[in-house]
Amino acid sequence: MADNKKMVNEITSMDVDFAKWYTDVVKKAELADYSCVKGCMVIRPYGYAIWENIQHILDTRFKELGHENVAMPMLIPESLLQKEKDHVEGFAPEVAWVTHGGSEKLEERLCIRPTSETLFCEHYAHVVHSYRDLPKLYNQWCSVLRWEKTTRPFLRTMEFFWQEGHTMHETAEEAIEETERMLNVYASFCEDSLAIPVVKGRKTDKEKFAGAEATYTIEAMMHDGKALQSGTSHYFGDGFARAFDIQFTGRDNTLQYPHQTSWGLSTRIIGAIIMTHGDDNGLVLPPAVAPIQVIIVPVAQHKPGVLDKAEELRARLASKFRVKMDASDNSPGWKFAEYEMKGVPLRLEIGPKDIENNQCVIVRRDNREKTFVPLDQLEEKIPELLRAVHDGLYRKALENRERRTWSATSIDQINELLSKDMGFVKAMWCGDLSCEEKLKEEAGVTSRCMPFEQETIGDGTCVCCGKPAKAMVYWGKAY
Amino acid sequence: MADNKKMVNEITSMDVDFAKWYTDVVKKAELADYSCVKGCMVIRPYGYAIWENIQHILDTRFKELGHENVAMPMLIPESLLQKEKDHVEGFAPEVAWVTHGGSEKLEERLCIRPTSETLFCEHYAHVVHSYRDLPKLYNQWCSVLRWEKTTRPFLRTMEFFWQEGHTMHETAEEAIEETERMLNVYASFCEDSLAIPVVKGRKTDKEKFAGAEATYTIEAMMHDGKALQSGTSHYFGDGFARAFDIQFTGRDNTLQYPHQTSWGLSTRIIGAIIMTHGDDNGLVLPPAVAPIQVIIVPVAQHKPGVLDKAEELRARLASKFRVKMDASDNSPGWKFAEYEMKGVPLRLEIGPKDIENNQCVIVRRDNREKTFVPLDQLEEKIPELLRAVHDGLYRKALENRERRTWSATSIDQINELLSKDMGFVKAMWCGDLSCEEKLKEEAGVTSRCMPFEQETIGDGTCVCCGKPAKAMVYWGKAY
Repeated sequence: MADNKKMVNEITSMDVDFAKWYTDVVKKAELADYSCVKGCMVIRPYGYAIWENIQHILDTRFKELGHENVAMPMLIPESLLQKEKDHVEGFAPEVAWVTHGGSEKLEERLCIRPTSETLFCEHYAHVVHSYRDLPKLYNQWCSVLRWEKTTRPFLRTMEFFWQEGHTMHETAEEAIEETERMLNVYASFCEDSLAIPVVKGRKTDKEKFAGAEATYTIEAMMHDGKALQSGTSHYFGDGFARAFDIQFTGRDNTLQYPHQTSWGLSTRIIGAIIMTHGDDNGLVLPPAVAPIQVIIVPVAQHKPGVLDKAEELRARLASKFRVKMDASDNSPGWKFAEYEMKGVPLRLEIGPKDIENNQCVIVRRDNREKTFVPLDQLEEKIPELLRAVHDGLYRKALENRERRTWSATSIDQINELLSKDMGFVKAMWCGDLSCEEKLKEEAGVTSRCMPFEQETIGDGTCVCCGKPAKAMVYWGKAY
Repeated sequence: MADNKKMVNEITSMDVDFAKWYTDVVKKAELADYSCVKGCMVIRPYGYAIWENIQHILDTRFKELGHENVAMPMLIPESLLQKEKDHVEGFAPEVAWVTHGGSEKLEERLCIRPTSETLFCEHYAHVVHSYRDLPKLYNQWCSVLRWEKTTRPFLRTMEFFWQEGHTMHETAEEAIEETERMLNVYASFCEDSLAIPVVKGRKTDKEKFAGAEATYTIEAMMHDGKALQSGTSHYFGDGFARAFDIQFTGRDNTLQYPHQTSWGLSTRIIGAIIMTHGDDNGLVLPPAVAPIQVIIVPVAQHKPGVLDKAEELRARLASKFRVKMDASDNSPGWKFAEYEMKGVPLRLEIGPKDIENNQCVIVRRDNREKTFVPLDQLEEKIPELLRAVHDGLYRKALENRERRTWSATSIDQINELLSKDMGFVKAMWCGDLSCEEKLKEEAGVTSRCMPFEQETIGDGTCVCCGKPAKAMVYWGKAY
């Protein structure tokens, strides 16, 4: 068994080389493969099944809140991308350009969408005429492309998969409410479905989305203390509406510009799952999105009745849980290691002695805790144990974050803290770009967000220039 | 009411101009909108909801048969596209080329995938090593792009949405079995879910997929007698495997090439739904994919209790059917016309007198048949009526096809038949490309398929050259 395990789980230890550990897990757990297009990945069945579970949970929630799915073109004419000044400045340097169709040179270049604000606005101009047409609450699931030099599976790829919500509202208040509502949807999803605690806050002007008035974000801390931006929600005011000439007749019969939001969450979140919960045995999946929640491993399966019993249990549990039974010729030890690598939350072992005693053993992936469960109590015990795995993962991630979140009142102190360990540093900021840039230069940190839950660190003056601060900021190094 | 109806339903009559009727329905039923990218469409919420229902039914079926979803890159390097000779000849003239990333010119051009055989093969070369790795049963839901000059929403667009299954098998027999299995999945889906009868058969070499050994197809007849290819399934032999050097160690320990299939069904099928079932009042949707199966229209809704009762019924039925209640200020007549335009299969009317009698009126979209239904029998009656709508639509479509399917033994006879009406002509064919081309020139028809259910027309000689025939072929004009 020990040998088998070694063969399956030959991955770099997290503490030796976290980056290498990450790519090992992506490969060994069969989540993704490199493709022949530099920077683009192949999402393999096991990885894609995680994404489908993520999609299902979010899509259901979006629809409950009245959102409708649509499909926009994947191409944007250059002139359309240029309509909103800040937006084009932000995105033009990182798009792929289509210049030929078949053998003909195009009159106007088309870019592959890096994001779809401009396409949605073009369509909204066709369909928004009266306040009765508002709000428009649209979303699309698609892939977008940004020309990146350095890429890593899920975390940063040229093409990535996401959903992008785009909404139009009668008033600024309604649009801001939507921006906040959707950030909260993302935050609840991360905490309740992925067991990833997040800090909610607002981005500084430097870090906000190109063309937005305000960008809200959820920031998660990975196992190594670095930050990962896990979802963003933007308020645009009426800037795009003016640029695209979208007007509606209001309740008072005057022509008005609608107010706009957009919000997105991408396959990056799979990277967050890997780096928040994984360990030296591989992936550890939160039960809500695990493609297999319970793996049934028959022990001594050549003995009469074992495989039949294992199959009977699988069939019985299949309507309630995502369950698989592995009847392959591999040894139980090999199977244990394989499904640990794949992060399956619960392993159910059943052998001749268990059958005799009318019970089985269930082992949790997160802490290897074993429980003997009478076979007639499986339907009650499995949900409890899945819940326990979720709670265990959340608690461990929260502890990691709390242990590595410090306060600082000087750049020297930030450097000192981060020289010992990686993490978040809470420090006051005056609001000036120059101080933000100085922290990047001198401490290597970027502003992660101005958290909604503000507090005062030290005497309330900027950690950099000493002037009165406008906000407390989470600083850190980010993926 | 008559006036309201006119306002909503101002569309061209089918018999006056079928093409104009089609685009009117697409627009008035709010299925799709034109985008600023020539040849690309915006799929609006109501259209996309139909596609989501299609996806759900097919995806469930694919998974029952053991298929797994994956995601491949949207870009293909030129050298990869060129690996299989027939394939590149077929597709290179109609792809969009990316030549620049950001401000840099690329060393090698990348095309936006027109289909993904080459990408799947590249990946299969990484993951297929042993017979134990087979079969690989992969599918992806995505959009692809083909540079088309003349486009029409859903029927022919530059970018279109589809699923593409790609599978690899140990033996030719298994792969051929898969090709046929998936064609049958498409045929059952069309008949059982979309109420569209189809002819199953094989394409001639001229009409088959670029790079395939055999292409199977399902052909549907539209209301105007023209054919629409509604789904295809291809058997590739080991041609791609050889071109991409995909080999596995077989059971006999020798190196072998696997055998491959692909199969696809696209948003074109929404065009088929429109043109098979629609009428002069707009869209008519088969219940299995209708976003709204039952629209509840309160009558005299200002009267006390009407809206409450309508809402009570909606809430009660919502867990069993896709149901909507329209409490807007529009008149009942306006609403009747609006949901007829949108093709909702059943309309449930409830007014003060109905409430008094503890009943409601249900009107079928397909034939306007009215049924009085006691309120306590809705849960039993609605499924019966939905079934009746489905059966009615299927029967009508089948009658149309049967009425317009003729046999011919000469090109003159084909011309004579088609000069009276459009339809399918069954005629024998010797198998020569020159005869197929002559039928195109002299009768304006293409071979739709060599149906699996063969019969002998006339004396069994080719309709064109008089030589002994190899097959009976369905000929027709196609979208």
